[in-house]
Amino acid sequence: MHFPGAHILSVTQFDRNDIETIFRVADSMAPYAHRERMTKVLDGAILGNMFFESSTRTRISFGCAFNMLGGEVRETTSISASSLTKGESLYDTARVLSGYSDIIVMRHPQSGSVADFARASRVPVINGGDGENEHPSQALLDLYTIEKELLGRDRGVDGMHIAMVGDLRHGRTVHSLSRLVQLFDDIRFTLISPAELRMPETIVNELRERGHEVVETDDMENGLTDNDIVYLTRIQEERFSNREEANLYRGRFRLNQAIYTRYCQPNTVIMHPLPRDSRAEANELDNDLNQNPGLAIFRQADNGVLIRMALFALVLDVCDRVHDTATDIHWYTEDRF
Amino acid sequence: MHFPGAHILSVTQFDRNDIETIFRVADSMAPYAHRERMTKVLDGAILGNMFFESSTRTRISFGCAFNMLGGEVRETTSISASSLTKGESLYDTARVLSGYSDIIVMRHPQSGSVADFARASRVPVINGGDGENEHPSQALLDLYTIEKELLGRDRGVDGMHIAMVGDLRHGRTVHSLSRLVQLFDDIRFTLISPAELRMPETIVNELRERGHEVVETDDMENGLTDNDIVYLTRIQEERFSNREEANLYRGRFRLNQAIYTRYCQPNTVIMHPLPRDSRAEANELDNDLNQNPGLAIFRQADNGVLIRMALFALVLDVCDRVHDTATDIHWYTEDRF
Amino acid sequence: MHFPGAHILSVTQFDRNDIETIFRVADSMAPYAHRERMTKVLDGAILGNMFFESSTRTRISFGCAFNMLGGEVRETTSISASSLTKGESLYDTARVLSGYSDIIVMRHPQSGSVADFARASRVPVINGGDGENEHPSQALLDLYTIEKELLGRDRGVDGMHIAMVGDLRHGRTVHSLSRLVQLFDDIRFTLISPAELRMPETIVNELRERGHEVVETDDMENGLTDNDIVYLTRIQEERFSNREEANLYRGRFRLNQAIYTRYCQPNTVIMHPLPRDSRAEANELDNDLNQNPGLAIFRQADNGVLIRMALFALVLDVCDRVHDTATDIHWYTEDRF
Repeated sequence: MHFPGAHILSVTQFDRNDIETIFRVADSMAPYAHRERMTKVLDGAILGNMFFESSTRTRISFGCAFNMLGGEVRETTSISASSLTKGESLYDTARVLSGYSDIIVMRHPQSGSVADFARASRVPVINGGDGENEHPSQALLDLYTIEKELLGRDRGVDGMHIAMVGDLRHGRTVHSLSRLVQLFDDIRFTLISPAELRMPETIVNELRERGHEVVETDDMENGLTDNDIVYLTRIQEERFSNREEANLYRGRFRLNQAIYTRYCQPNTVIMHPLPRDSRAEANELDNDLNQNPGLAIFRQADNGVLIRMALFALVLDVCDRVHDTATDIHWYTEDRF
Repeated sequence: MHFPGAHILSVTQFDRNDIETIFRVADSMAPYAHRERMTKVLDGAILGNMFFESSTRTRISFGCAFNMLGGEVRETTSISASSLTKGESLYDTARVLSGYSDIIVMRHPQSGSVADFARASRVPVINGGDGENEHPSQALLDLYTIEKELLGRDRGVDGMHIAMVGDLRHGRTVHSLSRLVQLFDDIRFTLISPAELRMPETIVNELRERGHEVVETDDMENGLTDNDIVYLTRIQEERFSNREEANLYRGRFRLNQAIYTRYCQPNTVIMHPLPRDSRAEANELDNDLNQNPGLAIFRQADNGVLIRMALFALVLDVCDRVHDTATDIHWYTEDRF
Repeated sequence: MHFPGAHILSVTQFDRNDIETIFRVADSMAPYAHRERMTKVLDGAILGNMFFESSTRTRISFGCAFNMLGGEVRETTSISASSLTKGESLYDTARVLSGYSDIIVMRHPQSGSVADFARASRVPVINGGDGENEHPSQALLDLYTIEKELLGRDRGVDGMHIAMVGDLRHGRTVHSLSRLVQLFDDIRFTLISPAELRMPETIVNELRERGHEVVETDDMENGLTDNDIVYLTRIQEERFSNREEANLYRGRFRLNQAIYTRYCQPNTVIMHPLPRDSRAEANELDNDLNQNPGLAIFRQADNGVLIRMALFALVLDVCDRVHDTATDIHWYTEDRF
């Protein structure tokens, strides 16, 4: 795809070359995100960070990525603060708001809303999550994390074994990630979920048509063995008819250090889209894994900044100039990473 | 008036020279708002964007205007986040907050509150809307849009014919705009509203005393003919005793392409303060007008940024320096306007 | 203490040298806060201004202090917008958010939460208030105000007489201030409160063990005499079993000009943590004192910016560079202070 001026709406926009492009730009952002150097390449540019649904981490991550490129951020943080409640169409909202910034990140509770908005926008739009539909920067940061973690183990994405665990039916994260990973070769997907929460058949079929191996199981212990990556998601209680039913599954889809030691091969990478629910009744990913070097969940969050910086730099077409405007940092930055 | 350090509280502050001054500064802001050039004239300055009432578009428009001049924005977005709920007086709030920025924009649900606040503030205050009272930057951007649209038709504001349509009794927008337009010569105002929702008599009398022609009617079709500008407002259902009564008026005060073609003279400019209510039961301005070149509603929103940049530059007394600090823009800016 | 990279969590971290250090850096910030000069020493740095509890004045004060040093601010303004509601631990929140900024200010309704957060953070954390526990920048700005006000009267903090008035049992402000002031010598504390709302015994004992004189009384008039500083707090109605009981105390703990003239020595400094409740039924500090030159409440708020700038500069280790990056200001700044 041609990045300058493009909207980033869906993972289906990308081919393997595009992903390679994004990831190599993300790599080049590390000195700025890690505060070894600063760049002012977007000095004077404005991001409209339009969150019509609450989100702390994604909103701050996009805003911080834009600041780290030298730009300014204008922001809305919830739909109650919006004209949308007065009957305004997304078309009107887009025509107006796109006069207020150079690029827009939009989150909205309604599937398809961000694409509708983008059609009327006069500036590029990045989908920051539209309901159960898409959240492409999350899928990109997940795949980027997989690539980096495997590289640290002298492996590549091609040929990897990945287990996805939990509510695979409703989670947009695992859907989007599957659609990205299928662009690579010879992947083995182990899909661990209760029968009622299996990955949608259309996605499973896509994976098989692309020549990948797909194993579906509700047996977590067996499913965990022999993987490079284990990607956990939360059991979303609200999808079950009652709490008791949800609780039936919950115990079986928890990962902790004892289970990891017993069933996972050494050095298996543990991922999770965050936030993880650490309340006793949920606890899908136990805190006793916090010192496990395979736990990549906070590296995922850090990689999100790199990916978002890369998307901004590509869409606003400043990749070549990032380093020309770089200078040293003089404030305290020790022990950061 | 003398702009440097002044509070901007009401359209009644301005004479025709002041308006001319604001509009010519607004013109000079176009290269920056349209992202052809950037300026850093307010680099280091801080706007306190104090919205004690929800508003996305006006809040972002002011913030973006300040960013486009190179300044920073600190912000509050609703009254719940405020000490006002703990019994603090506006005097105290103003004494404190005016120590935190170089200029304040304030929106507040209570009529007269912004003027009270300004009396205690140690920095200039711009009224961003105080209840049903005033919203001067909206009236300025409306008049500025009228001037620019008529100039494109080789006309000036003097001698124009303007129709105002809808709930003329409650809308602060049409009140403030009438008070600005009356400073010009030989205007014909056609005020189209149900009898119960007529423009307040004091304003009608002011217009007539200034020598303007005022026609009041509840016949929309006849009222629409032979105008340069048609300014629509929403029927505010909450003002009626019941929904049925509101619905009686609604159908008659809708504008769509068919009505426009039949009753309006060619090239009539269509304006609306936004947001327009596009729900089927309201729809005062139909989406089938979106391709009509006379539809100026999004140009109004764009002009709002220019007007707000001009007010900041005038009040902070930097008009002469805006262009000295200008540089080229290097990020993607195509197809923006 | 060693400031670079330190968390600022509690007033108990400071000895008298530390306070002296903070206050002298605060002094040096005056030209920037008063808009005589601007500095860009933190140009490119990002503050994560994480308010998981509503607060306008403290949040804006920290944000403005960071902007005045040239940095950018990313922000959250309430807990509803947060992953905390989805069962995320403070540990996880800290690991993630500390990848998004160079320093974090955090307010949270729960005592001890900010210290928990800081333990997991990879960047320095400043406590912006954790429930009833601590609010160290408030105590510092109070003490800094005392020092400056007394200096204007050719006095120092050592040997001063201070009266604290109101609900001394629940107010974290007077607790923290007492803990700072006790580091000085020969202070006389007059603690004026209803018997039910006396200063906690542990704090009174600390003060006496340090050799200070402590007088406890419920007689406001006598207590007011012969003080350098009178520090008022609000009667917190919600602590009483009913409104009538609260009202019994309220009248006796009001200060107005008549009481001041009759009981206080001339030039007594009046302080209050703000917001003061100016509703008729509360009104602990009457508006008729607004012209009294001893009323220091708004100077307290202004000093808060200086103290917060000093904390940022010390923790991020840029004190030596603040003035090297300073330039003149060219926008309107008259009549500000």
